[in-house]
Amino acid sequence: MARSNPTVITIAEEAGVSIASVSRVFNGQPVREETRIRVMAAAERVGYVPNAVARSLKSSRTDQVAFAVEDIGNPVYLAMLRQIQPVLKEAGYRLVLHSTGADTDEEIEVLRGLGQRYADGLIISPIRVTERHLAEFRKAPAPVVVIGSLSEDSPVDNVRADSRTGVELAVDHLLGLGRRRIGFVDGPLDTVPGGARDEGYRAAMARRGLPVDEDLVHVGGFDRATGAAAMRRMLHGGAPIPDALLCANDLIALGVLDELRSAGLAVPHDVAVVGMDDTDLAAASWPALTSVSLGSAERGRRAAALLLERLADPDALLAPRVVTVAPHLVVRASTGGEHGTADGRPAAD
Amino acid sequence: MARSNPTVITIAEEAGVSIASVSRVFNGQPVREETRIRVMAAAERVGYVPNAVARSLKSSRTDQVAFAVEDIGNPVYLAMLRQIQPVLKEAGYRLVLHSTGADTDEEIEVLRGLGQRYADGLIISPIRVTERHLAEFRKAPAPVVVIGSLSEDSPVDNVRADSRTGVELAVDHLLGLGRRRIGFVDGPLDTVPGGARDEGYRAAMARRGLPVDEDLVHVGGFDRATGAAAMRRMLHGGAPIPDALLCANDLIALGVLDELRSAGLAVPHDVAVVGMDDTDLAAASWPALTSVSLGSAERGRRAAALLLERLADPDALLAPRVVTVAPHLVVRASTGGEHGTADGRPAAD
Repeated sequence: MARSNPTVITIAEEAGVSIASVSRVFNGQPVREETRIRVMAAAERVGYVPNAVARSLKSSRTDQVAFAVEDIGNPVYLAMLRQIQPVLKEAGYRLVLHSTGADTDEEIEVLRGLGQRYADGLIISPIRVTERHLAEFRKAPAPVVVIGSLSEDSPVDNVRADSRTGVELAVDHLLGLGRRRIGFVDGPLDTVPGGARDEGYRAAMARRGLPVDEDLVHVGGFDRATGAAAMRRMLHGGAPIPDALLCANDLIALGVLDELRSAGLAVPHDVAVVGMDDTDLAAASWPALTSVSLGSAERGRRAAALLLERLADPDALLAPRVVTVAPHLVVRASTGGEHGTADGRPAAD
Repeated sequence: MARSNPTVITIAEEAGVSIASVSRVFNGQPVREETRIRVMAAAERVGYVPNAVARSLKSSRTDQVAFAVEDIGNPVYLAMLRQIQPVLKEAGYRLVLHSTGADTDEEIEVLRGLGQRYADGLIISPIRVTERHLAEFRKAPAPVVVIGSLSEDSPVDNVRADSRTGVELAVDHLLGLGRRRIGFVDGPLDTVPGGARDEGYRAAMARRGLPVDEDLVHVGGFDRATGAAAMRRMLHGGAPIPDALLCANDLIALGVLDELRSAGLAVPHDVAVVGMDDTDLAAASWPALTSVSLGSAERGRRAAALLLERLADPDALLAPRVVTVAPHLVVRASTGGEHGTADGRPAAD
């Protein structure tokens, strides 16, 4: 089903002005008179009729909101889901869950499926954002909020993490502990999180005048086996081993801990280890894992709030909004936090 | 909306025979002639019209199935969800997720909500099953499958775990390791899992001629704090400490491990520890946790399959079915499994 009601995007395209300008006009904010006239003329040409559109949307309400993620078994998405579900429920919406297996075709299908009016809106967290995604976002037949990083002129509301700052927090923490040979284990670089974390690591090291030793950088999957393989390679590769390892998620860090234990090395005495995402696994491991929280729960909550605002007034010509959730570091025993002694073993063991 | 189409249950009530008898009659299986006549007469009286019912159900298909659990953050439900979602998707159904907070009123509301035809069927895992649940199951306006233990004459399809056998597997494993003072930490006894696991523990101990020492039994919540509190009480209560502790879930076991570490005791050398549910946390902990798997994933898969059978032929007068998924023990380092030495520390550490 094609989009039948004009939006801020179609009006901006028709007027040849920015989305922000259209939004300013319709929200009564200051704007050049010429722009105002072009926007109003374009709105008329594309048939923008505020109340009628609002009424037609209300009459076809499904009371459902869809949430689409790559893999619902991933604790990051689960943390989001746990926040999104009660917020939507409170507002009278049921939650429809899609697990797409990180397949772009499936994600596109979910976006197009909105045309069948089974949901009033969609929250989606694609692991890769392609041109096809952007094209579908632009013509989405219902409000869409993306959790993940889109470019600045994103056509839809966007809630993002700040992994760059998150990685910097971890690097600073390790530097403060006197570590200098800080290695990095990442997932695929062509994924949004993999790419952003790699950039963050290199930028943080550069900003502090530390060289990146490629022998201490390993790229694989976002899984435990990758952590173990990376650590094994660094231990047996002949080069000096790292004194700290930053891992792009907690599962990778668990694999690193496995391999360090097998090699008889002490954490954090010999090698300090930091995970990312601060999942339940971080607190369950021993030594408990210091981890960068990218605010998954908060991102879920903010995404739900943005979508509810759109649904409450589908007719409002708000420009797409960008919300960035600040990261924070949760320090535990794997870097010498409160739960362990300097050698990472409990004091009384 | 009241149920409008007669079912195997209404016909059985009308005929004054068992549900199984009605099912046998309609599936052409051997049955006493008198029973057959009573069933056919009852079916006529309650207005059972196979094809019309099937047609009316088909025309109002929503292509959605609901899954209702207490807390979607619980890894047991997550393991079920991960199996249920792809099975339903393959069959062309979207999944609607309800998280009820273990509130009976909310669960009843979800069951009644089926009358609004937003879903073609429901899989529900109530933590407590009350008379109100049973009454709603009987008059549910769409097929319902319950994951959890119902009484033998359950009005709906039922997929159950066998925690009693699961607990026995754990007790036998600990006895085989020479442990005799086997303690038990449980969640609330008025919940389905709490009650079943308590019964299982007492039965397993009795069957092996071992007395239950109430000083070694602790009841609290299904959480880490309960495990720590139980272990603390047993360590400082004055009575001889247990040489093994069976925990009603993995979170409780993590709390027990915390407290044993704080007390400077070695796992499994001083105290062997076993969890239940075999969640991701079990493999993430150190020592890695031996855990009883009650087949959450398998239960999810079977529940989805039972529901799809009902949906494929809503008209079939199948008696409610009971499927029991067998438990198995996953042995890890916390009882001296392959991943650790006898004292629970890695060989090379």
